[in-house]
Amino acid sequence: MVSQSNKPCDLVLFGTKGDLARRKLLPSLYQLEKAGLLDSNTKIIGVARHVHTQEEFVDLVKEALETFMKEDIVEEVWDKFSAKLDYCMVDLRDIADYAKLQKHVDQSQRVMVNYFSTPPSIFGSICNGLNEAGLINDETRVVLEKPIGHDLASSKVINDQVAEFFAESQTYRIDHYLGKETTLNLLSLRFANSLFASNWDHNCIDHVQITVAEEVGIEGRWGYFDDAGQMRDMVQNHLLQVLSLVAMNPPVSLNANDVRDEKLRVMKCLRPITKDNVAVKTVRGQYAAGAIKGQPVPGYLEEEGANTESNTESFVALRVDIDNWRWSGVPFYLRTGKRLPEKLTEIVIHFKNMPHNIFKDSYGELPSNVLTIRMQPREGVEVKVLNKVPGLNEKMNLQETKLDLSFSEAFKDVRIADAYERLLLEALLGNQSLFVRRDEVEAAWSWVDGIFQAWAETNDKPKPYPAGTWGPSSAAALLAKDDREWDS
Amino acid sequence: MVSQSNKPCDLVLFGTKGDLARRKLLPSLYQLEKAGLLDSNTKIIGVARHVHTQEEFVDLVKEALETFMKEDIVEEVWDKFSAKLDYCMVDLRDIADYAKLQKHVDQSQRVMVNYFSTPPSIFGSICNGLNEAGLINDETRVVLEKPIGHDLASSKVINDQVAEFFAESQTYRIDHYLGKETTLNLLSLRFANSLFASNWDHNCIDHVQITVAEEVGIEGRWGYFDDAGQMRDMVQNHLLQVLSLVAMNPPVSLNANDVRDEKLRVMKCLRPITKDNVAVKTVRGQYAAGAIKGQPVPGYLEEEGANTESNTESFVALRVDIDNWRWSGVPFYLRTGKRLPEKLTEIVIHFKNMPHNIFKDSYGELPSNVLTIRMQPREGVEVKVLNKVPGLNEKMNLQETKLDLSFSEAFKDVRIADAYERLLLEALLGNQSLFVRRDEVEAAWSWVDGIFQAWAETNDKPKPYPAGTWGPSSAAALLAKDDREWDS
Repeated sequence: MVSQSNKPCDLVLFGTKGDLARRKLLPSLYQLEKAGLLDSNTKIIGVARHVHTQEEFVDLVKEALETFMKEDIVEEVWDKFSAKLDYCMVDLRDIADYAKLQKHVDQSQRVMVNYFSTPPSIFGSICNGLNEAGLINDETRVVLEKPIGHDLASSKVINDQVAEFFAESQTYRIDHYLGKETTLNLLSLRFANSLFASNWDHNCIDHVQITVAEEVGIEGRWGYFDDAGQMRDMVQNHLLQVLSLVAMNPPVSLNANDVRDEKLRVMKCLRPITKDNVAVKTVRGQYAAGAIKGQPVPGYLEEEGANTESNTESFVALRVDIDNWRWSGVPFYLRTGKRLPEKLTEIVIHFKNMPHNIFKDSYGELPSNVLTIRMQPREGVEVKVLNKVPGLNEKMNLQETKLDLSFSEAFKDVRIADAYERLLLEALLGNQSLFVRRDEVEAAWSWVDGIFQAWAETNDKPKPYPAGTWGPSSAAALLAKDDREWDS
Repeated sequence: MVSQSNKPCDLVLFGTKGDLARRKLLPSLYQLEKAGLLDSNTKIIGVARHVHTQEEFVDLVKEALETFMKEDIVEEVWDKFSAKLDYCMVDLRDIADYAKLQKHVDQSQRVMVNYFSTPPSIFGSICNGLNEAGLINDETRVVLEKPIGHDLASSKVINDQVAEFFAESQTYRIDHYLGKETTLNLLSLRFANSLFASNWDHNCIDHVQITVAEEVGIEGRWGYFDDAGQMRDMVQNHLLQVLSLVAMNPPVSLNANDVRDEKLRVMKCLRPITKDNVAVKTVRGQYAAGAIKGQPVPGYLEEEGANTESNTESFVALRVDIDNWRWSGVPFYLRTGKRLPEKLTEIVIHFKNMPHNIFKDSYGELPSNVLTIRMQPREGVEVKVLNKVPGLNEKMNLQETKLDLSFSEAFKDVRIADAYERLLLEALLGNQSLFVRRDEVEAAWSWVDGIFQAWAETNDKPKPYPAGTWGPSSAAALLAKDDREWDS
């Protein structure tokens, strides 16, 4: 979060005609231009294997913005932005072809930032090609899109291929959850507020819930998704990143490695899930036909292109234990799934109950305080506290009420930036704080691989749940057996 | 707060034609009737020295309600209420005259609750008269209006006079601050919310501010007020009661004596203010001519009936230290005055600063978390926390934002009862929790007397402040020398 460089860049977008580039990267770059955050000498070089003139490429970018941005293009911004655009046709599998890039970039004037928005299977080729073309120096950066591997072993292969040419300090691994405003606000909440900081451990916190619920199904990407599943697609990266930000010890500074060191320490303390406890600590689900907001939707196995024998999970719930001093005895319950009743991402901190209840005449069991960090929708923070119900005949009757902070109300007129805008900006500035370090990726895979192994060893099958519900009933049972329940 | 009896009562109002009875007690009793909280067999017996028929008295009560209630009288409620009214003429200084009360009450059927809304100088006579008339048994109660004395010695005289006939368990001393919803809610906030309970000590709290600001001047009561002054009129009772609720250790239950034991313990730990430190720990002020909301108002010495030599204070600010384990090193700053810019009662808890600031690149000095309990106006609770300012070019810039709970919004349609309604109800129910015990009164006087002595010994004179300002500038200096400032 500390800007390390303000040099102009050659941002090279490999896979510039792909879905991610069109939906997210190009619109985000336009927004950075609009906000005046792109250096006037920065260039954006699209790379794909198709033949395009410069003019055709500019038109393609404009069409992408028109299709995927919710706002109209401002002519003045577009003029500046389009002047930065450049195109270079490269056959990514042909090492010799990368030499074409040489005349599009100038590393004596600008930092070359290579954004790999391609399947990871060709990351190695691209690195090789750049190297052969003499385009890699100590300042050159590489931004890697997920997924980085399918498990620990395959992630090592990919990371090794890149590491042959780029040092870790040159490598920027994307997890777009780290670019969200609400994720960053977690750091402020935890480390700028003594009210929370002094309560942030096993003495004061009973348990934590992290929910990433999607309303959508697999959105026509059956093949891709079925190969990954919800665990690889969401838990290994996003949920474990969020968990480690919630659970980490205070970093000594906001410098990239200070923050990442602390996140890594959490990952390393995750208690392994094995065949002996996988049945009580995990729930896998797969959506069946159901209804979302009153509209019927097909089940996972009825989606277009489905292999009807698939055992891939579209829902996971986990009880995670962190074996360190801070969190001993405090479970973190994670839950994520597709075709759930609503799109919702939130972190819910349940504080401990009061040790002694002096209000028992009016309130037999006092509910505990709850801090909710809403990541979406309606970004904000709320704290549930108990207050006395006003009224003469209420004696000391208590009621849960909310201290509420909605970001959109508190910060009126502030546009909430897309995560990719921030991550692109940080990559251009050369700040690694919001990117995932290799050891984090590997620690996460290592833990997740253990769960896959335990599922295989116990021959676990995902349980069906109707689309539009909160997953299989065993997800509720996961908490019920600890005498707790999900907030939604 | 635990109801101990639901027996019908004979509520005898001594001083029934006085200002307090007309403004507060009779309207409050009407509200209790309206809320269905008066036992159908309860009687309300007005006592004064004037000759009135029953009808005349009922008319006088109705006129008081019409004058001082903000709402229209509901005929149906009035019918029930007026049927409870009774009048008895008694010359309060004539012991023999009290026998007249005998035929108005029936202690075999109802509990006799004697409300002394008279100057304390005749409390002794009333007790004597009731005793001579054989009207005091072990169940008979007495409710004492403030002020109970002018100092420790005179309070002992009054309490002794009453104690000759009534045990402490029969004696209900009014401090109407204890009847306010927001005062009671302090107990819920502190003892039902682990988020606050676990932060409530010198480890987490930097200091506390308690402000009771009045916009009015002495409202034509120059003689009364000049004899008392702001210290006796507000600090000795209301502010010290609020302070002890904020500072007390958790009581083992909400029973009257468990709560009052803990409050007393705080009073006993107040560090004495002596001639050696009175100059740095206290500020006295007296308002001079000025303006309130743009309207010119006279100074204290120019008010009707003023003795222009008066040294009575209309403003006090104090630094209070509590010498116990919980509060060592945590000052409580109290402030109260007349002719201040607004009517405002609030308790503000300033938590400690974070020990280490990782946001110093964007925020050199982090402000601390602040919990504000607004007692009036706009009753509610708010917590100031630091959040990240959304926005790409904001890096990790933070901003103070408020988690806000307004009672009127959170508890819609709930009428906030006047403190006297609650206190009358509790006296009728026989619950002493919200009444001040003799040892509390004496501990408070004992500490306050020390300050008066120190002022006398140092020949302290109140400093003038223009009406409509927050007191003399030395009130700001009181905190400034500790590197702090008042919130308003």
